Amino acid sequence: MNNLLAKYVDRAAFDELAQRYIRATGTPEPLASAAVYAVVDGGKRLRPALCYMGAAFAGAKRESADFCAAAIEFIHCYSLVHDDLPSMDNDALRRGKPTVHVKFGEGMAVLCGDFLLNLAYEILTSGITDAKTCKAARIIAECAGGAGMVGGQCLDIRGGTPEDEAALREAYAKKTSALFQGALLSGAAVGGAGDEELAALKEYAYLLGIAFQIEDDILDVTSTAEVLGKDIDSDARNDKTTYVTLFGLDGARAKLHADCVGAKQALAKYGDRAADLVKLVDLLESRAY
Amino acid sequence: MNNLLAKYVDRAAFDELAQRYIRATGTPEPLASAAVYAVVDGGKRLRPALCYMGAAFAGAKRESADFCAAAIEFIHCYSLVHDDLPSMDNDALRRGKPTVHVKFGEGMAVLCGDFLLNLAYEILTSGITDAKTCKAARIIAECAGGAGMVGGQCLDIRGGTPEDEAALREAYAKKTSALFQGALLSGAAVGGAGDEELAALKEYAYLLGIAFQIEDDILDVTSTAEVLGKDIDSDARNDKTTYVTLFGLDGARAKLHADCVGAKQALAKYGDRAADLVKLVDLLESRAY
Repeated sequence: MNNLLAKYVDRAAFDELAQRYIRATGTPEPLASAAVYAVVDGGKRLRPALCYMGAAFAGAKRESADFCAAAIEFIHCYSLVHDDLPSMDNDALRRGKPTVHVKFGEGMAVLCGDFLLNLAYEILTSGITDAKTCKAARIIAECAGGAGMVGGQCLDIRGGTPEDEAALREAYAKKTSALFQGALLSGAAVGGAGDEELAALKEYAYLLGIAFQIEDDILDVTSTAEVLGKDIDSDARNDKTTYVTLFGLDGARAKLHADCVGAKQALAKYGDRAADLVKLVDLLESRAY
Repeated sequence: MNNLLAKYVDRAAFDELAQRYIRATGTPEPLASAAVYAVVDGGKRLRPALCYMGAAFAGAKRESADFCAAAIEFIHCYSLVHDDLPSMDNDALRRGKPTVHVKFGEGMAVLCGDFLLNLAYEILTSGITDAKTCKAARIIAECAGGAGMVGGQCLDIRGGTPEDEAALREAYAKKTSALFQGALLSGAAVGGAGDEELAALKEYAYLLGIAFQIEDDILDVTSTAEVLGKDIDSDARNDKTTYVTLFGLDGARAKLHADCVGAKQALAKYGDRAADLVKLVDLLESRAY
Protein backbone atom coordinates (compact mmCIF):
# COMPACT_ATOMS: atom_id res chain seq x y z
CA MET A 1 0.00 0.00 0.00
CA ASN A 2 2.83 2.38 0.85
CA ASN A 3 4.08 2.43 -2.74
CA LEU A 4 0.71 3.50 -4.05
CA LEU A 5 0.34 6.19 -1.40
CA ALA A 6 3.86 7.41 -2.14
CA LYS A 7 2.77 8.09 -5.70
CA TYR A 8 0.43 10.74 -4.32
CA VAL A 9 2.16 11.93 -1.13
CA ASP A 10 5.86 12.43 -0.60
CA ARG A 11 5.95 11.83 3.14
CA ALA A 12 9.12 13.82 3.77
CA ALA A 13 7.81 16.78 1.78
CA PHE A 14 4.48 16.53 3.59
CA ASP A 15 6.25 16.58 6.96
CA GLU A 16 8.04 19.75 5.92
CA LEU A 17 4.84 21.35 4.70
CA ALA A 18 3.09 20.45 7.96
CA GLN A 19 5.91 21.85 10.07
CA ARG A 20 5.96 25.03 8.05
CA TYR A 21 2.24 25.52 8.63
CA ILE A 22 2.61 24.93 12.37
CA ARG A 23 5.68 27.13 12.85
CA ALA A 24 4.27 29.95 10.70
CA THR A 25 1.54 30.56 13.27
CA GLY A 26 4.04 31.78 15.87
CA THR A 27 2.39 29.49 18.41
CA PRO A 28 4.07 29.46 21.85
CA GLU A 29 6.03 26.53 23.23
CA PRO A 30 5.53 23.76 24.10
CA LEU A 31 2.30 23.83 22.10
CA ALA A 32 4.00 24.21 18.72
CA SER A 33 6.38 21.34 19.48
CA ALA A 34 3.54 19.16 20.72
CA ALA A 35 1.73 19.79 17.43
CA VAL A 36 4.82 18.93 15.40
CA TYR A 37 5.25 15.80 17.51
CA ALA A 38 1.63 14.82 16.84
CA VAL A 39 1.82 15.35 13.11
CA VAL A 40 5.34 14.79 11.83
CA ASP A 41 6.82 11.42 10.91
CA GLY A 42 3.60 9.62 11.57
CA GLY A 43 1.09 7.50 9.81
CA LYS A 44 0.52 6.46 6.25
CA ARG A 45 -0.82 9.86 5.12
CA LEU A 46 -3.77 7.99 3.73
CA ARG A 47 -6.12 10.97 3.95
CA PRO A 48 -3.85 13.42 2.12
CA ALA A 49 -3.29 10.70 -0.49
CA LEU A 50 -7.07 10.31 -0.89
CA CYS A 51 -7.35 14.07 -1.27
CA TYR A 52 -4.76 14.14 -4.03
CA MET A 53 -6.36 11.07 -5.62
CA GLY A 54 -9.64 12.99 -5.67
CA ALA A 55 -7.93 15.93 -7.35
CA ALA A 56 -6.33 13.62 -9.92
CA PHE A 57 -9.66 11.89 -10.55
CA ALA A 58 -11.18 15.29 -11.34
CA GLY A 59 -8.24 16.35 -13.48
CA ALA A 60 -6.98 19.04 -11.11
CA LYS A 61 -3.36 19.95 -10.53
CA ARG A 62 -1.91 18.32 -7.45
CA GLU A 63 -0.89 21.61 -5.77
CA SER A 64 -4.41 22.96 -6.00
CA ALA A 65 -5.42 20.43 -3.35
CA ASP A 66 -2.48 21.10 -0.99
CA PHE A 67 -4.55 23.19 1.39
CA CYS A 68 -7.23 20.50 1.68
CA ALA A 69 -4.67 17.71 2.08
CA ALA A 70 -2.90 19.51 4.92
CA ALA A 71 -6.14 20.49 6.63
CA ILE A 72 -7.60 17.00 6.52
CA GLU A 73 -4.45 15.46 7.96
CA PHE A 74 -4.35 18.03 10.78
CA ILE A 75 -7.97 17.16 11.54
CA HIS A 76 -7.09 13.46 11.57
CA CYS A 77 -4.09 14.07 13.84
CA TYR A 78 -6.07 16.23 16.29
CA SER A 79 -8.66 13.46 16.57
CA LEU A 80 -5.94 10.93 17.41
CA VAL A 81 -4.47 13.18 20.11
CA HIS A 82 -7.86 13.63 21.78
CA ASP A 83 -8.86 10.01 21.21
CA ASP A 84 -5.75 8.81 23.07
CA LEU A 85 -6.51 10.91 26.17
CA PRO A 86 -7.02 9.12 29.49
CA SER A 87 -10.66 10.23 29.50
CA MET A 88 -11.17 8.69 26.05
CA ASP A 89 -9.34 5.51 24.90
CA ASN A 90 -6.43 5.98 27.31
CA ASP A 91 -3.69 4.83 24.95
CA ALA A 92 -0.05 5.38 25.88
CA LEU A 93 1.52 4.37 22.58
CA ARG A 94 0.81 5.66 19.07
CA ARG A 95 2.86 5.10 15.94
CA GLY A 96 5.58 3.57 18.12
CA LYS A 97 5.95 6.69 20.27
CA PRO A 98 4.48 7.80 23.60
CA THR A 99 1.18 9.58 22.96
CA VAL A 100 1.04 13.38 23.19
CA HIS A 101 -0.46 13.46 26.69
CA VAL A 102 2.21 11.06 27.98
CA LYS A 103 4.95 13.22 26.50
CA PHE A 104 3.56 16.74 27.04
CA GLY A 105 0.92 16.32 29.75
CA GLU A 106 -2.82 16.01 29.49
CA GLY A 107 -3.73 19.70 29.44
CA MET A 108 -1.24 20.39 26.67
CA ALA A 109 -2.62 17.42 24.72
CA VAL A 110 -6.12 18.89 24.90
CA LEU A 111 -4.76 22.20 23.60
CA CYS A 112 -2.64 20.47 20.97
CA GLY A 113 -5.78 18.94 19.49
CA ASP A 114 -7.61 22.26 19.64
CA PHE A 115 -4.69 23.99 17.96
CA LEU A 116 -4.46 21.45 15.12
CA LEU A 117 -8.20 21.55 14.50
CA ASN A 118 -8.21 25.33 14.37
CA LEU A 119 -5.10 25.38 12.19
CA ALA A 120 -6.90 23.17 9.71
CA TYR A 121 -9.47 25.92 9.31
CA GLU A 122 -6.89 28.70 9.20
CA ILE A 123 -5.45 26.85 6.24
CA LEU A 124 -8.83 26.12 4.67
CA THR A 125 -10.19 29.65 4.95
CA SER A 126 -6.90 31.01 3.60
CA GLY A 127 -7.15 28.64 0.65
CA ILE A 128 -10.59 29.76 -0.47
CA THR A 129 -10.31 31.70 -3.70
CA ASP A 130 -13.42 30.70 -5.65
CA ALA A 131 -16.59 28.61 -5.54
CA LYS A 132 -14.72 25.32 -6.01
CA THR A 133 -12.29 25.87 -3.14
CA CYS A 134 -15.12 27.14 -0.98
CA LYS A 135 -17.09 23.97 -1.66
CA ALA A 136 -14.05 21.87 -0.77
CA ALA A 137 -13.71 23.66 2.59
CA ARG A 138 -17.40 23.14 3.35
CA ILE A 139 -17.16 19.44 2.54
CA ILE A 140 -14.30 19.00 4.99
CA ALA A 141 -16.01 21.00 7.74
CA GLU A 142 -19.18 18.93 7.46
CA CYS A 143 -17.39 15.58 7.40
CA ALA A 144 -15.33 16.47 10.48
CA GLY A 145 -18.29 17.60 12.56
CA GLY A 146 -21.14 16.23 14.65
CA ALA A 147 -22.73 14.47 11.68
CA GLY A 148 -19.36 12.95 10.86
CA MET A 149 -16.15 12.24 12.70
CA VAL A 150 -16.88 13.92 16.05
CA GLY A 151 -20.28 12.25 16.11
CA GLY A 152 -18.51 8.93 15.59
CA GLN A 153 -16.25 9.56 18.56
CA CYS A 154 -19.36 10.22 20.60
CA LEU A 155 -20.90 6.86 19.64
CA ASP A 156 -17.55 5.27 20.47
CA ILE A 157 -17.32 6.49 24.05
CA ARG A 158 -20.88 7.05 25.18
CA GLY A 159 -21.14 3.65 26.80
CA GLY A 160 -23.44 0.90 25.62
CA THR A 161 -21.37 -0.49 22.78
CA PRO A 162 -23.20 -1.00 19.42
CA GLU A 163 -25.34 -4.11 19.65
CA ASP A 164 -25.60 -5.11 16.02
CA GLU A 165 -23.87 -4.68 12.70
CA ALA A 166 -26.04 -1.75 11.61
CA ALA A 167 -25.14 0.27 14.70
CA LEU A 168 -21.49 -0.66 14.31
CA ARG A 169 -21.49 0.39 10.66
CA GLU A 170 -23.04 3.71 11.58
CA ALA A 171 -20.30 4.28 14.13
CA TYR A 172 -17.54 3.28 11.69
CA ALA A 173 -19.06 5.43 8.94
CA LYS A 174 -18.99 8.50 11.15
CA LYS A 175 -15.66 7.74 12.76
CA THR A 176 -13.67 6.80 9.66
CA SER A 177 -15.64 6.99 6.41
CA ALA A 178 -16.59 10.61 7.05
CA LEU A 179 -13.00 11.84 6.95
CA PHE A 180 -12.17 9.60 3.98
CA GLN A 181 -15.12 11.24 2.22
CA GLY A 182 -13.93 14.68 3.27
CA ALA A 183 -10.48 13.96 1.88
CA LEU A 184 -11.52 12.40 -1.41
CA LEU A 185 -14.46 14.71 -2.15
CA SER A 186 -12.66 17.92 -1.24
CA GLY A 187 -9.85 17.06 -3.66
CA ALA A 188 -12.40 16.25 -6.34
CA ALA A 189 -14.35 19.44 -5.60
CA VAL A 190 -11.22 21.54 -6.09
CA GLY A 191 -11.04 19.93 -9.52
CA GLY A 192 -14.66 20.82 -10.23
CA ALA A 193 -16.12 17.29 -10.09
CA GLY A 194 -19.84 17.08 -10.82
CA ASP A 195 -22.60 15.81 -8.55
CA GLU A 196 -22.69 12.33 -10.05
CA GLU A 197 -18.95 11.92 -9.66
CA LEU A 198 -19.05 13.21 -6.11
CA ALA A 199 -21.85 10.76 -5.24
CA ALA A 200 -19.85 7.81 -6.60
CA LEU A 201 -16.72 8.89 -4.73
CA LYS A 202 -18.80 9.32 -1.58
CA GLU A 203 -20.09 5.75 -1.79
CA TYR A 204 -16.57 4.48 -2.47
CA ALA A 205 -15.12 6.36 0.52
CA TYR A 206 -17.96 5.18 2.74
CA LEU A 207 -17.19 1.53 2.00
CA LEU A 208 -13.44 2.10 2.12
CA GLY A 209 -13.81 3.54 5.62
CA ILE A 210 -15.91 0.61 6.81
CA ALA A 211 -13.38 -1.80 5.33
CA PHE A 212 -10.56 0.09 7.00
CA GLN A 213 -12.26 -0.24 10.38
CA ILE A 214 -12.99 -3.94 9.92
CA GLU A 215 -9.33 -4.40 9.08
CA ASP A 216 -8.46 -2.56 12.32
CA ASP A 217 -10.71 -4.94 14.22
CA ILE A 218 -8.92 -7.89 12.66
CA LEU A 219 -5.41 -6.53 13.21
CA ASP A 220 -6.22 -5.70 16.83
CA VAL A 221 -6.41 -9.45 17.56
CA THR A 222 -3.92 -10.83 15.01
CA SER A 223 -1.00 -8.39 15.03
CA THR A 224 1.54 -7.23 17.59
CA ALA A 225 2.32 -3.87 19.16
CA GLU A 226 5.71 -3.89 17.43
CA VAL A 227 4.20 -4.23 13.97
CA LEU A 228 1.32 -1.82 14.54
CA GLY A 229 3.23 0.74 16.58
CA LYS A 230 0.35 1.03 19.03
CA ASP A 231 -1.21 -0.97 21.83
CA ILE A 232 -3.01 -4.12 20.73
CA ASP A 233 -6.02 -5.76 22.33
CA SER A 234 -7.30 -2.28 23.21
CA ASP A 235 -10.75 -3.29 21.95
CA ALA A 236 -10.90 -6.22 24.36
CA ARG A 237 -9.56 -4.06 27.19
CA ASN A 238 -12.28 -1.52 26.53
CA ASP A 239 -15.01 -4.16 26.06
CA LYS A 240 -15.83 -2.92 22.58
CA THR A 241 -18.06 -4.53 20.00
CA THR A 242 -16.11 -5.13 16.78
CA TYR A 243 -16.60 -7.13 13.61
CA VAL A 244 -14.48 -9.84 15.23
CA THR A 245 -16.60 -10.01 18.39
CA LEU A 246 -19.78 -10.06 16.26
CA PHE A 247 -18.73 -12.47 13.51
CA GLY A 248 -15.45 -14.11 14.54
CA LEU A 249 -12.21 -13.74 12.60
CA ASP A 250 -13.33 -15.58 9.45
CA GLY A 251 -16.70 -13.86 9.47
CA ALA A 252 -15.03 -10.45 9.78
CA ARG A 253 -12.78 -11.27 6.84
CA ALA A 254 -15.79 -12.22 4.71
CA LYS A 255 -17.50 -8.93 5.60
CA LEU A 256 -14.31 -7.04 4.78
CA HIS A 257 -14.20 -8.70 1.39
CA ALA A 258 -17.82 -7.80 0.59
CA ASP A 259 -17.27 -4.14 1.38
CA CYS A 260 -14.10 -4.08 -0.69
CA VAL A 261 -16.01 -5.49 -3.65
CA GLY A 262 -18.70 -2.83 -3.14
CA ALA A 263 -16.16 -0.02 -3.00
CA LYS A 264 -14.67 -1.08 -6.32
CA GLN A 265 -18.10 -1.41 -7.91
CA ALA A 266 -18.97 2.14 -6.92
CA LEU A 267 -16.29 3.42 -9.29
CA ALA A 268 -16.51 0.70 -11.96
CA LYS A 269 -17.89 3.00 -14.62
CA TYR A 270 -14.96 5.40 -14.38
CA GLY A 271 -12.45 2.85 -15.67
CA ASP A 272 -8.85 4.07 -15.78
CA ARG A 273 -9.58 7.33 -13.98
CA ALA A 274 -10.38 5.26 -10.90
CA ALA A 275 -7.65 2.64 -11.33
CA ASP A 276 -5.57 3.75 -8.36
CA LEU A 277 -8.61 4.05 -6.10
CA VAL A 278 -9.52 0.48 -7.01
CA LYS A 279 -5.95 -0.64 -6.40
CA LEU A 280 -6.03 0.98 -2.97
CA VAL A 281 -8.94 -1.23 -1.96
CA ASP A 282 -7.10 -4.39 -2.97
CA LEU A 283 -4.00 -3.35 -1.07
CA LEU A 284 -6.04 -2.49 1.99
CA GLU A 285 -7.76 -5.87 1.98
CA SER A 286 -4.53 -7.79 1.65
CA ARG A 287 -3.10 -6.10 4.76
CA ALA A 288 -5.64 -7.85 6.95
CA TYR A 289 -4.39 -11.33 6.04
CA MET B 1 -23.63 46.65 30.71
CA ASN B 2 -26.42 44.13 30.00
CA ASN B 3 -28.70 46.85 28.62
CA LEU B 4 -26.12 47.92 26.09
CA LEU B 5 -25.39 44.34 25.04
CA ALA B 6 -29.15 43.69 24.75
CA LYS B 7 -29.31 46.45 22.15
CA TYR B 8 -27.13 44.25 19.93
CA VAL B 9 -27.99 40.69 21.01
CA ASP B 10 -31.41 39.37 21.97
CA ARG B 11 -30.25 36.60 24.28
CA ALA B 12 -33.37 34.46 23.92
CA ALA B 13 -33.23 34.72 20.13
CA PHE B 14 -29.52 33.93 20.19
CA ASP B 15 -30.17 30.83 22.30
CA GLU B 16 -32.69 29.66 19.74
CA LEU B 17 -30.33 30.34 16.88
CA ALA B 18 -27.54 28.44 18.65
CA GLN B 19 -29.78 25.46 19.38
CA ARG B 20 -30.98 25.39 15.80
CA TYR B 21 -27.40 25.27 14.55
CA ILE B 22 -26.52 22.46 16.95
CA ARG B 23 -29.61 20.34 16.29
CA ALA B 24 -29.41 20.84 12.52
CA THR B 25 -26.18 18.84 12.42
CA GLY B 26 -27.93 15.61 13.43
CA THR B 27 -25.24 15.03 16.04
CA PRO B 28 -25.78 11.94 18.22
CA GLU B 29 -26.70 12.08 21.88
CA PRO B 30 -25.52 12.94 24.42
CA LEU B 31 -23.11 15.09 22.44
CA ALA B 32 -25.78 17.39 21.01
CA SER B 33 -27.30 17.92 24.45
CA ALA B 34 -23.89 18.57 25.97
CA ALA B 35 -23.30 21.23 23.34
CA VAL B 36 -26.67 22.86 23.99
CA TYR B 37 -25.89 22.75 27.72
CA ALA B 38 -22.55 24.42 27.12
CA VAL B 39 -23.94 27.19 24.94
CA VAL B 40 -27.54 27.96 25.85
CA ASP B 41 -28.65 30.28 28.63
CA GLY B 42 -25.13 31.26 29.47
CA GLY B 43 -22.96 34.28 29.57
CA LYS B 44 -23.31 37.87 28.54
CA ARG B 45 -22.98 37.17 24.79
CA LEU B 46 -20.30 39.84 24.79
CA ARG B 47 -18.54 38.42 21.72
CA PRO B 48 -21.64 38.22 19.52
CA ALA B 49 -22.47 41.76 20.67
CA LEU B 50 -19.00 42.91 19.66
CA CYS B 51 -19.46 41.24 16.30
CA TYR B 52 -22.74 43.05 15.69
CA MET B 53 -21.21 46.29 16.96
CA GLY B 54 -18.47 45.84 14.38
CA ALA B 55 -21.07 45.33 11.67
CA ALA B 56 -22.97 48.44 12.81
CA PHE B 57 -19.74 50.44 12.94
CA ALA B 58 -19.11 49.51 9.30
CA GLY B 59 -22.70 50.21 8.27
CA ALA B 60 -23.62 46.58 7.60
CA LYS B 61 -27.00 45.02 8.23
CA ARG B 62 -27.15 43.11 11.48
CA GLU B 63 -28.17 39.79 9.89
CA SER B 64 -25.17 39.83 7.60
CA ALA B 65 -22.98 39.19 10.65
CA ASP B 66 -25.12 36.39 12.11
CA PHE B 67 -22.82 33.64 10.92
CA CYS B 68 -19.77 35.31 12.47
CA ALA B 69 -21.57 36.06 15.74
CA ALA B 70 -22.69 32.44 16.15
CA ALA B 71 -19.30 31.05 15.19
CA ILE B 72 -17.37 33.28 17.56
CA GLU B 73 -19.65 32.41 20.49
CA PHE B 74 -19.30 28.69 19.75
CA ILE B 75 -15.54 29.13 19.74
CA HIS B 76 -15.74 30.97 23.06
CA CYS B 77 -17.97 28.26 24.56
CA TYR B 78 -15.73 25.42 23.37
CA SER B 79 -12.76 27.13 25.00
CA LEU B 80 -14.63 27.35 28.31
CA VAL B 81 -15.57 23.66 28.20
CA HIS B 82 -11.96 22.63 27.60
CA ASP B 83 -10.58 25.23 30.01
CA ASP B 84 -12.73 23.83 32.83
CA LEU B 85 -11.43 20.25 32.36
CA PRO B 86 -9.64 18.58 35.28
CA SER B 87 -6.41 18.59 33.27
CA MET B 88 -6.73 22.36 32.73
CA ASP B 89 -8.26 24.72 35.33
CA ASN B 90 -10.34 21.98 36.98
CA ASP B 91 -13.42 24.10 37.63
CA ALA B 92 -16.65 22.41 38.72
CA LEU B 93 -18.95 25.43 38.44
CA ARG B 94 -19.57 27.71 35.46
CA ARG B 95 -22.37 30.25 35.03
CA GLY B 96 -24.00 28.85 38.15
CA LYS B 97 -24.20 25.31 36.75
CA PRO B 98 -22.00 22.21 36.99
CA THR B 99 -19.40 22.32 34.23
CA VAL B 100 -19.83 20.09 31.19
CA HIS B 101 -17.37 17.43 32.35
CA VAL B 102 -19.09 17.23 35.74
CA LYS B 103 -22.46 16.80 34.07
CA PHE B 104 -21.60 14.67 31.03
CA GLY B 105 -18.22 13.11 31.89
CA GLU B 106 -14.75 14.12 30.89
CA GLY B 107 -14.52 12.32 27.55
CA MET B 108 -17.82 13.80 26.40
CA ALA B 109 -16.61 17.26 27.48
CA VAL B 110 -13.53 16.90 25.30
CA LEU B 111 -15.76 15.93 22.36
CA CYS B 112 -18.23 18.69 23.17
CA GLY B 113 -15.49 21.27 22.77
CA ASP B 114 -14.28 19.65 19.56
CA PHE B 115 -17.82 19.59 18.20
CA LEU B 116 -18.46 23.26 18.99
CA LEU B 117 -15.15 24.35 17.47
CA ASN B 118 -15.83 22.41 14.30
CA LEU B 119 -19.41 23.64 14.15
CA ALA B 120 -18.12 27.20 14.23
CA TYR B 121 -16.28 26.45 11.01
CA GLU B 122 -19.18 24.60 9.44
CA ILE B 123 -21.13 27.81 9.97
CA LEU B 124 -18.30 30.06 8.79
CA THR B 125 -17.54 28.14 5.61
CA SER B 126 -21.27 27.96 4.84
CA GLY B 127 -21.51 31.72 5.30
CA ILE B 128 -18.82 32.62 2.79
CA THR B 129 -20.39 34.17 -0.28
CA ASP B 130 -17.89 36.83 -1.34
CA ALA B 131 -14.52 38.41 -0.51
CA LYS B 132 -15.87 40.28 2.53
CA THR B 133 -17.38 37.22 4.20
CA CYS B 134 -14.28 35.21 3.34
CA LYS B 135 -12.10 37.83 5.02
CA ALA B 136 -14.34 37.71 8.09
CA ALA B 137 -13.95 33.93 8.34
CA ARG B 138 -10.17 34.20 8.02
CA ILE B 139 -10.02 36.83 10.75
CA ILE B 140 -11.88 34.58 13.16
CA ALA B 141 -9.78 31.52 12.32
CA GLU B 142 -6.55 33.40 12.93
CA CYS B 143 -7.69 34.98 16.20
CA ALA B 144 -8.84 31.62 17.57
CA GLY B 145 -5.60 29.80 16.74
CA GLY B 146 -2.09 29.32 18.03
CA ALA B 147 -1.19 32.97 17.56
CA GLY B 148 -4.35 33.91 19.44
CA MET B 149 -6.68 32.23 21.87
CA VAL B 150 -5.27 28.69 21.88
CA GLY B 151 -1.78 30.13 22.27
CA GLY B 152 -3.04 32.05 25.27
CA GLN B 153 -4.37 28.88 26.87
CA CYS B 154 -0.95 27.37 26.36
CA LEU B 155 0.78 30.24 28.19
CA ASP B 156 -1.85 29.86 30.91
CA ILE B 157 -1.19 26.21 31.71
CA ARG B 158 2.41 25.56 30.70
CA GLY B 159 3.73 26.12 34.19
CA GLY B 160 5.96 28.98 35.17
CA THR B 161 3.39 31.73 35.60
CA PRO B 162 4.18 35.07 33.87
CA GLU B 163 6.77 36.94 35.91
CA ASP B 164 6.10 40.51 34.90
CA GLU B 165 3.40 42.71 33.47
CA ALA B 166 4.60 42.39 29.89
CA ALA B 167 4.36 38.59 29.99
CA LEU B 168 0.97 38.80 31.67
CA ARG B 169 -0.31 41.24 29.03
CA GLU B 170 0.87 38.93 26.28
CA ALA B 171 -1.04 36.06 27.86
CA TYR B 172 -4.18 38.16 28.33
CA ALA B 173 -3.97 39.51 24.80
CA LYS B 174 -3.88 36.02 23.36
CA LYS B 175 -6.38 34.54 25.76
CA THR B 176 -9.02 37.26 25.65
CA SER B 177 -8.20 40.16 23.33
CA ALA B 178 -7.72 37.82 20.38
CA LEU B 179 -11.32 36.64 20.39
CA PHE B 180 -12.62 40.16 21.04
CA GLN B 181 -10.66 41.20 17.97
CA GLY B 182 -12.02 38.28 16.00
CA ALA B 183 -15.57 39.24 16.96
CA LEU B 184 -15.32 42.96 16.34
CA LEU B 185 -13.19 42.81 13.21
CA SER B 186 -15.13 40.01 11.55
CA GLY B 187 -18.34 42.02 11.93
CA ALA B 188 -16.63 45.09 10.54
CA ALA B 189 -15.10 43.06 7.69
CA VAL B 190 -18.54 41.80 6.68
CA GLY B 191 -19.47 45.48 6.38
CA GLY B 192 -16.44 46.18 4.24
CA ALA B 193 -14.43 48.22 6.77
CA GLY B 194 -11.12 49.56 5.44
CA ASP B 195 -7.63 48.84 6.75
CA GLU B 196 -7.43 51.99 8.87
CA GLU B 197 -10.75 51.27 10.53
CA LEU B 198 -9.80 47.65 11.15
CA ALA B 199 -6.51 48.74 12.74
CA ALA B 200 -8.31 51.13 15.10
CA LEU B 201 -10.84 48.47 16.05
CA LYS B 202 -8.02 46.01 16.60
CA GLU B 203 -6.28 48.33 19.06
CA TYR B 204 -9.57 49.00 20.83
CA ALA B 205 -10.35 45.27 21.15
CA TYR B 206 -6.81 44.56 22.35
CA LEU B 207 -7.15 47.03 25.21
CA LEU B 208 -10.73 46.00 25.95
CA GLY B 209 -9.56 42.40 26.33
CA ILE B 210 -6.74 43.36 28.68
CA ALA B 211 -9.16 45.48 30.72
CA PHE B 212 -11.61 42.59 30.82
CA GLN B 213 -8.95 40.27 32.20
CA ILE B 214 -7.77 42.80 34.81
CA GLU B 215 -11.39 43.10 35.87
CA ASP B 216 -11.54 39.30 36.18
CA ASP B 217 -8.45 39.40 38.38
CA ILE B 218 -10.12 41.99 40.59
CA LEU B 219 -13.47 40.20 40.80
CA ASP B 220 -11.75 36.92 41.63
CA VAL B 221 -10.73 38.39 45.00
CA THR B 222 -13.60 40.83 45.66
CA SER B 223 -16.74 39.00 44.55
CA THR B 224 -18.52 35.80 45.58
CA ALA B 225 -19.33 32.58 43.80
CA GLU B 226 -23.04 33.44 44.01
CA VAL B 227 -22.59 36.72 42.16
CA LEU B 228 -20.12 35.42 39.59
CA GLY B 229 -21.72 32.05 39.04
CA LYS B 230 -18.33 30.35 39.13
CA ASP B 231 -15.69 29.40 41.65
CA ILE B 232 -13.80 32.32 43.15
CA ASP B 233 -10.23 32.39 44.37
CA SER B 234 -9.35 29.98 41.57
CA ASP B 235 -6.35 32.16 40.73
CA ALA B 236 -4.97 31.80 44.26
CA ARG B 237 -5.73 28.08 44.26
CA ASN B 238 -3.84 27.68 41.03
CA ASP B 239 -0.97 29.95 42.12
CA LYS B 240 -1.45 32.26 39.18
CA THR B 241 0.12 35.64 38.60
CA THR B 242 -2.58 38.29 38.13
CA TYR B 243 -2.73 42.08 38.11
CA VAL B 244 -3.79 41.85 41.77
CA THR B 245 -0.83 39.69 42.78
CA LEU B 246 1.53 42.01 40.84
CA PHE B 247 0.11 45.40 41.82
CA GLY B 248 -2.39 44.89 44.66
CA LEU B 249 -6.07 45.75 44.39
CA ASP B 250 -5.67 49.53 44.04
CA GLY B 251 -2.79 49.14 41.64
CA ALA B 252 -4.82 46.76 39.49
CA ARG B 253 -7.68 49.26 39.40
CA ALA B 254 -5.35 52.02 38.27
CA LYS B 255 -4.02 49.80 35.48
CA LEU B 256 -7.56 48.91 34.48
CA HIS B 257 -8.43 52.58 34.24
CA ALA B 258 -5.44 53.36 32.04
CA ASP B 259 -6.30 50.61 29.57
CA CYS B 260 -9.92 51.77 29.48
CA VAL B 261 -8.78 55.30 28.62
CA GLY B 262 -6.55 53.87 25.89
CA ALA B 263 -9.36 51.80 24.40
CA LYS B 264 -11.58 54.86 24.12
CA GLN B 265 -8.79 56.93 22.59
CA ALA B 266 -8.26 54.32 19.88
CA LEU B 267 -11.71 55.14 18.49
CA ALA B 268 -11.85 58.84 19.39
CA LYS B 269 -11.74 60.01 15.81
CA TYR B 270 -14.82 58.04 14.82
CA GLY B 271 -17.16 60.05 17.03
CA ASP B 272 -20.76 58.88 17.11
CA ARG B 273 -20.10 55.76 15.06
CA ALA B 274 -18.05 54.47 18.01
CA ALA B 275 -20.31 55.79 20.77
CA ASP B 276 -21.55 52.39 21.92
CA LEU B 277 -18.09 50.87 21.83
CA VAL B 278 -16.90 53.72 24.06
CA LYS B 279 -19.86 53.24 26.37
CA LEU B 280 -19.05 49.55 26.66
CA VAL B 281 -15.63 50.40 28.07
CA ASP B 282 -17.12 52.65 30.75
CA LEU B 283 -19.63 49.99 31.74
CA LEU B 284 -16.93 47.35 31.90
CA GLU B 285 -14.75 49.48 34.15
CA SER B 286 -17.55 50.27 36.57
CA ARG B 287 -18.24 46.54 37.09
CA ALA B 288 -14.90 46.12 38.83
CA TYR B 289 -15.76 48.57 41.60
